[in-house]
Amino acid sequence: MKLALLHPGQMGVTIGIAAKDSGHSVSWLRAGRSHETTERATAAGFGSCGTLSDLLARSDGIVCVCPPAAAMTVAQSVVAAGFDGIYLDANAIAPHTARQIHALLGDCYVDGGIVGPPAVREGSTRLYLSGPHAITAANWFAGGLLEAITIEGAPGAASALKMCYAAYTKGTSALLLAIRALAESEGVTAPLLDEWAISQQGLADRSAQAATGTAPKAWRFAGEMEEIAATFAAADLPDGFHEGAADIYRRLTDLKGVRSPSLADVLERLNAKR
Amino acid sequence: MKLALLHPGQMGVTIGIAAKDSGHSVSWLRAGRSHETTERATAAGFGSCGTLSDLLARSDGIVCVCPPAAAMTVAQSVVAAGFDGIYLDANAIAPHTARQIHALLGDCYVDGGIVGPPAVREGSTRLYLSGPHAITAANWFAGGLLEAITIEGAPGAASALKMCYAAYTKGTSALLLAIRALAESEGVTAPLLDEWAISQQGLADRSAQAATGTAPKAWRFAGEMEEIAATFAAADLPDGFHEGAADIYRRLTDLKGVRSPSLADVLERLNAKR
Repeated sequence: MKLALLHPGQMGVTIGIAAKDSGHSVSWLRAGRSHETTERATAAGFGSCGTLSDLLARSDGIVCVCPPAAAMTVAQSVVAAGFDGIYLDANAIAPHTARQIHALLGDCYVDGGIVGPPAVREGSTRLYLSGPHAITAANWFAGGLLEAITIEGAPGAASALKMCYAAYTKGTSALLLAIRALAESEGVTAPLLDEWAISQQGLADRSAQAATGTAPKAWRFAGEMEEIAATFAAADLPDGFHEGAADIYRRLTDLKGVRSPSLADVLERLNAKR
Repeated sequence: MKLALLHPGQMGVTIGIAAKDSGHSVSWLRAGRSHETTERATAAGFGSCGTLSDLLARSDGIVCVCPPAAAMTVAQSVVAAGFDGIYLDANAIAPHTARQIHALLGDCYVDGGIVGPPAVREGSTRLYLSGPHAITAANWFAGGLLEAITIEGAPGAASALKMCYAAYTKGTSALLLAIRALAESEGVTAPLLDEWAISQQGLADRSAQAATGTAPKAWRFAGEMEEIAATFAAADLPDGFHEGAADIYRRLTDLKGVRSPSLADVLERLNAKR
């Protein structure tokens, strides 16, 4: 198969490589992408195209991996260009957003949700897929490091699963950072760490790792938390947990790309007078 | 010392027993309390009083263990009755509520926060104490199953510590129940449990335990989550996590006292059309 990858970000490039390792060709759209993206795509050996219409004319299928807020726009641009092959959206979007994209694209739409880090080692990362053509899209990745798993349900199911999963992992990372900021603000960090050492072993380390690991990606997580909040609200469940998490991550956006920021860097931003 | 206990609930009775086991006498206020409270206090061998003024006239110190929403009212009633001994508030209240009670009572006020379940076995439960007379209050419990720990800081510090601690434990229990409800609503429970079994071992069990363990106490936790939300808001940090948690626990209030409700009982209430 000839696949188009929109776009080869840190996650996306490993999804493209998984397709390539499964025997498919992968091309990408050069226009408007950063220097880092160009380097990643070139290193991965993807074919480069200058315009969307050129890219779509030579592709049988599309894989979209982008920030959640851009997912609908990318889908609309593909429809506008007249593409009628299989379209896999693997973004962290609310299931009702997935259902809107389904309404736009029809049954050539495959709903996907990625669980795990960029797929650079075996067993680390799973791509969940739902919709009538889920098995077709799963075959794009049959031979790579990414494990593609089809699940029951209409388009929206894979996105719902992703939302439920990240609701806990990224939600609790944000909560831990908020708690560390509160403890600092109230002057009770030392006794909190002492108590955690007795009855909640691992939380001190997890909160420090949440700072180092999530803050550089916080600019991206804020949008994902908003999709999760909208998912809870649409199900008549409380959206506050992830509105709060989005707020925490928004306060950390200027740490984008900073290598291993410290917990102190993070707490300073969370507690900054605003 | 002659101590008054307001009131011998499930937690409070074990705090009173810890004082009694440390050589102090403990009395309680019969008026307006339930049959269950009477049974607990009688079994513990506490002295019974019919009126607040009688109780205070025979007491050198007071221990207040009550739902957070009642903490200020109890403190006011004690001030109105002219009590001037040491007053320990051990409730799950926001530090600014603790500071308000401090303003009302002056330096005879000791701020406390309990971490752990009712103190029925050694090492399970700690009472954190802050304020000028924290050491005096700690000595009330020197010989019982409850470990009293004084921490640095003015009244408010022990309450802040309790808020930070419960923010994670009770906050994540509510979040897990919300996620299970969302997964049920979206029809993705089975693949979520499969993914958790791979990458988040323990969450399936923890969410089932959260239902069984917290739902019977949810009526009480809702108020505590509101105190925590107010604590975050007062520190200019997001209150959404615990507004969400309060919402979850409020939906479960009719499970008060139900023995071991199932996860299905809980999810039915969380997802009920409202």
